[in-house]
Amino acid sequence: MSTKPRPLSGFPELLPAQRMVEQQVVDPLRHVFELHGFAGIETRAVEPLDQLLRKGDTSKEVYLLRRLHEESAEGHAGLGLHFDLTVPFARYVLENAGRLEFPFRRYQVQKAWRGERPQEGRFREFTQADIDVVGRDVLPFHHDVEVTRVMVDALTRLQFLPGFRLQVNNRKLIQGFYLGLGVAEGDGVDEVMRLVDKLDKLPVERVREMLLAEAGVDEQTADRVLELATIRSGDDSFVERVRALDVSHPLLDEGLEELSALVRGVADLVTDRVRVEADLSIARGLDYYTGTVFETRLDGFESMGSICSGGRYDALATDGRTTYPGVGISLGVSRVVVPLLARTGLSADRSVPSAVLVAVVDEERRDASEAVASALRAHDVPCEVAPTAAKFGKQIRFAERRGIPYVWFPGDAGSHEVKDIRTGEQVAADPATWTPPAPDLRPRVTTGQTTDGQPTETQEKQ
Amino acid sequence: MSTKPRPLSGFPELLPAQRMVEQQVVDPLRHVFELHGFAGIETRAVEPLDQLLRKGDTSKEVYLLRRLHEESAEGHAGLGLHFDLTVPFARYVLENAGRLEFPFRRYQVQKAWRGERPQEGRFREFTQADIDVVGRDVLPFHHDVEVTRVMVDALTRLQFLPGFRLQVNNRKLIQGFYLGLGVAEGDGVDEVMRLVDKLDKLPVERVREMLLAEAGVDEQTADRVLELATIRSGDDSFVERVRALDVSHPLLDEGLEELSALVRGVADLVTDRVRVEADLSIARGLDYYTGTVFETRLDGFESMGSICSGGRYDALATDGRTTYPGVGISLGVSRVVVPLLARTGLSADRSVPSAVLVAVVDEERRDASEAVASALRAHDVPCEVAPTAAKFGKQIRFAERRGIPYVWFPGDAGSHEVKDIRTGEQVAADPATWTPPAPDLRPRVTTGQTTDGQPTETQEKQ
Repeated sequence: MSTKPRPLSGFPELLPAQRMVEQQVVDPLRHVFELHGFAGIETRAVEPLDQLLRKGDTSKEVYLLRRLHEESAEGHAGLGLHFDLTVPFARYVLENAGRLEFPFRRYQVQKAWRGERPQEGRFREFTQADIDVVGRDVLPFHHDVEVTRVMVDALTRLQFLPGFRLQVNNRKLIQGFYLGLGVAEGDGVDEVMRLVDKLDKLPVERVREMLLAEAGVDEQTADRVLELATIRSGDDSFVERVRALDVSHPLLDEGLEELSALVRGVADLVTDRVRVEADLSIARGLDYYTGTVFETRLDGFESMGSICSGGRYDALATDGRTTYPGVGISLGVSRVVVPLLARTGLSADRSVPSAVLVAVVDEERRDASEAVASALRAHDVPCEVAPTAAKFGKQIRFAERRGIPYVWFPGDAGSHEVKDIRTGEQVAADPATWTPPAPDLRPRVTTGQTTDGQPTETQEKQ
Repeated sequence: MSTKPRPLSGFPELLPAQRMVEQQVVDPLRHVFELHGFAGIETRAVEPLDQLLRKGDTSKEVYLLRRLHEESAEGHAGLGLHFDLTVPFARYVLENAGRLEFPFRRYQVQKAWRGERPQEGRFREFTQADIDVVGRDVLPFHHDVEVTRVMVDALTRLQFLPGFRLQVNNRKLIQGFYLGLGVAEGDGVDEVMRLVDKLDKLPVERVREMLLAEAGVDEQTADRVLELATIRSGDDSFVERVRALDVSHPLLDEGLEELSALVRGVADLVTDRVRVEADLSIARGLDYYTGTVFETRLDGFESMGSICSGGRYDALATDGRTTYPGVGISLGVSRVVVPLLARTGLSADRSVPSAVLVAVVDEERRDASEAVASALRAHDVPCEVAPTAAKFGKQIRFAERRGIPYVWFPGDAGSHEVKDIRTGEQVAADPATWTPPAPDLRPRVTTGQTTDGQPTETQEKQ
């Protein structure tokens, strides 16, 4: 290694103080998921290619694996890196079905890989945090409310992030509405849904033209389809507005009932920062969702698209005899964290976990400083011992550069003192009992200056 | 997916109760590393192939990446998955040197991949936990003692694992000894070291023959080389025994001084479960270590080889102008955890994080059960609400199958009761304040029966 290595576009890496921010996103997520009874699992990074490309979809930008010393006899040519956590999870459920208890709640925080062109919030390697509840044969609707509540609870605790708007809809509602309008079941409904899903990218007039030309619906139908897609509300008042469009179908009734139950079921958790609204334009493309669908916008980063998506699938997995319905949401951790670090200078207030630097008087007395550090660690105060017995001023500047708030001066005969180097206050202290104020114990996330610069992620073209 | 998927050999996956064991290994590691001031970072999974194969070593079983829709213009053919965390860390240090503070302490718990043939404790995908301290230009020896102490502290806290024997040696000691015997510097010393490193696989007589035939040393030299390799001690008494061999060289003196300082420096941490001993046969192959070297044996699993290795490298990284010396240890988390799960039935006593199952009286009163769950979670009691309003007996059996210790019965007018289903004891309780005894709050690791069977890892031939 004789030249300075350069970052790889699409593979963001964080500096220590930035990684602490990411960790302070992931830790509360895990805590909330476990409070709600979700078990953490990890799946392997690779899947057989036929699993990754099931349903004949070869459009995915999958990374294939090949061993450097591949022997033709071994079939590793058929392995690829997973591009999400849903495909491996569905496979895990089938593989272990006999050893799991259903309904099975699991969370999974892992990396995934896609070979697509990098852009803001879109990476080739990224971390996702998924929650799903999976049933065997049946999964009552109240689990749709449950996963929504869990994710709202989790997002609410990420206080240092901007606000979130969770948009919910229901496939049954849309499909029932289209069927009630006389659109043909199957391809007809799918085509209308596919075109409506373009409303976030194309002007409404253009989508209307496409509905007439490509889906072959009449003008009145097109207008009502588009009218439905304009409806959004933070409470269940959308039901009345849909009813006013004078369309009826049993599937529409079912969808309206589910969606209003969902909106009512999370109303008590909604705050200014984390909102939930019914948005009847959300359809989640042509995915495999069959009921509830979710998307989430991050305030101030709406152009990035959805950062937290999911929904209900009546057949997450099936082995031919048994079907496993599921409902889940996936939060794009990297999608949220990396752009925020880059754009807002979000960082931790120190680049090390240490709350205390224990000064070293001279190298002969390094043991005494180590003993202080051990005493502090024994009651969970993170600390480090100065690397050299430099002048105290230099040792204090060493702590300052790392953002370590306290410097400990070991004294003879147990006369220790500890200095808050932010205020200059210095007091006598006992290493066996002293602890900093709680907010100083762990690095704090700040939006001000960073302690060690900008993220190494670059958006340059390769 | 119409057939049951099969596990992939070498890619172990854990059931939920097993993953909890792994998590209860990783969490204390992270806690200890942070207490010692080590900052957590993650590096990307991929590196350019020339980094992975530096020093011309093409023997590594590296996985190469290729995008499914590779365009010839893009150079992704040159990327591979990292096979350890040291190569990416060295690259990270060089890439970010201007934004890091030195000495830089970092820990890294991540997966790595090797395309080698799977065997016990050797996987194609595995988790490692690495700690390193890296300096700029210089790194005092006391950091060798530091990383040893940190790892001993960490291993000591993993109470439910078997004991560990950390074996330490020093390259300077061995090299100085050989030089003092008159073995030629450079290739001569390297060749003797390479042969001595075979002592854990070949009988001593065979190694002696090879020393004579391949390294070309005389019989007396061979005998003393082999005698040195028999020396081991839990304290610094090895110094006398080396001195008794009557060899002298300045490098030998330096090595003896360092190794005895290391053994003395960790003596206060040694227990019956986690021992440290100087073992003068350890050389860590032909790796890039230049001073201290570590290996670790897991009691009862000695045949697996070292599960925690590392050492001092005077040039972890260099950009031609600046050199970054480092010292570090890498713990093979999968190497320890997966064989233990398979062989000893180690598991968690429940398959879900929930300490409480909140029963549901009837579906109309599910809200009341949800309210109890929210109240419990508000003071950090993990719980879940029963999926159906089945008869209470059935709900209790539902909890039993998951190993959930408590079932909560919501009553009218706030007359709640909670039952310990292991003892049958049932008491009145307030969801706003009730908490289980601390040991019941989180899943416990047990070595008895498993709640959900054996690990899915298989050792079958592919």
